[in-house]
Amino acid sequence: MSDKATSIQKLKTKINTFIAERDWEKFHSPKNLSMSIAIEAAELMEKFQWLEGIESKKLTNKKKREIEEELADIAVYILNFCSLYNIDLSSAIERKLKINSKKYPVEHAKGNSRKYTELRLNP
Amino acid sequence: MSDKATSIQKLKTKINTFIAERDWEKFHSPKNLSMSIAIEAAELMEKFQWLEGIESKKLTNKKKREIEEELADIAVYILNFCSLYNIDLSSAIERKLKINSKKYPVEHAKGNSRKYTELRLNP
Amino acid sequence: MSDKATSIQKLKTKINTFIAERDWEKFHSPKNLSMSIAIEAAELMEKFQWLEGIESKKLTNKKKREIEEELADIAVYILNFCSLYNIDLSSAIERKLKINSKKYPVEHAKGNSRKYTELRLNP
Amino acid sequence: MSDKATSIQKLKTKINTFIAERDWEKFHSPKNLSMSIAIEAAELMEKFQWLEGIESKKLTNKKKREIEEELADIAVYILNFCSLYNIDLSSAIERKLKINSKKYPVEHAKGNSRKYTELRLNP
Repeated sequence: MSDKATSIQKLKTKINTFIAERDWEKFHSPKNLSMSIAIEAAELMEKFQWLEGIESKKLTNKKKREIEEELADIAVYILNFCSLYNIDLSSAIERKLKINSKKYPVEHAKGNSRKYTELRLNP
Repeated sequence: MSDKATSIQKLKTKINTFIAERDWEKFHSPKNLSMSIAIEAAELMEKFQWLEGIESKKLTNKKKREIEEELADIAVYILNFCSLYNIDLSSAIERKLKINSKKYPVEHAKGNSRKYTELRLNP
Repeated sequence: MSDKATSIQKLKTKINTFIAERDWEKFHSPKNLSMSIAIEAAELMEKFQWLEGIESKKLTNKKKREIEEELADIAVYILNFCSLYNIDLSSAIERKLKINSKKYPVEHAKGNSRKYTELRLNP
Repeated sequence: MSDKATSIQKLKTKINTFIAERDWEKFHSPKNLSMSIAIEAAELMEKFQWLEGIESKKLTNKKKREIEEELADIAVYILNFCSLYNIDLSSAIERKLKINSKKYPVEHAKGNSRKYTELRLNP
């Protein structure tokens, strides 16, 4: 599989099979899935806990491999959430990027990291 | 866009454009992206904070829309992470599912939620 | 030590000694401490990941011991944060409870879990 | 109130009263409290999301006030957790520091941030 050749739906199907074979859907309420995403997100953070931002960019092969596994764990729960509760992730992302484009118009947001609520107050 | 017709790479490219237009790559160290994923994951959790699992399954249209936005926020950071640090998410997921298949063999894991470290101890 | 006989300051001092002996203050920026609190919070959540609320109340001795350790981990980082950045936690809590009393007046909030932003809209 | 003059028990009692007046104990299962701690921890992180470690140390008065509120939110949930499930936080912290002293002996841990699992492997 590769990102170029793989549709979101194909990943969803692969994951659904994995979950269904283990009869795990019954544990996968939205509440539990949201907890699981947060737990895996914390495991990803742990890889960079004591590093400065610039240090965190130096990814050895071993570290990169670990990070790939953590990112995959989070993505698996997201895709499973979308499958079980009929969410089309691609269109959700497309819609969210449109919302963010309005919150963070290029002319105001360019090169700074201020939150949209503070963006126009501090030009 | 739809999950059936959209490749991971297409989403990555869309997100890259959004980030690059705002000159935001400089903030997106692995450390900061991992924090951002965790922050968005907590916003998703907040939607279910005081609900029981079964209650969390009742998604009104308004709630579903909010959840789609939160899931999209997390997915955007994950895809941006993968783009910036040359990670193929599809193959990472494929590899992780293989690892998990060994950790959680169907015959032991079916229908229970025990962690793999406890799976064989309590058959 | 016991909660009845131990002041917050005494705990802070104990923790400061532990950190200073290891020369760890240099890693303890507010950013890193906030990440550390979130990481430990996720480890606490993991203990209840797949349980329903009511099931999570059944704390065996082993489980209770594990939970005490996770709660301690979070509290240690909070107290260390307060020490290093001159925050009086007792007065911060006192002030926050006053703010929350206004956000959640007893007559509106009693027995329901709605967020303050929705509290008066849905009486 | 001040950290010097306030016992943990006194804070617990203050918080218990606040919760009981609102009849909120019924929502405060260990599962829900662990989620709540993680949600508040993420709000604290958000204050430092795009800053480097060193930048995060510059706390303006406004920022310090916000951080105090977030730290208080987390501490309130921890103390409420301990109250409801009969946990003495002081002795839990004392015990955890002893465990950590063995995991991170001064002679090995001094001045470095390696995890205990890697501490002796990379002296």
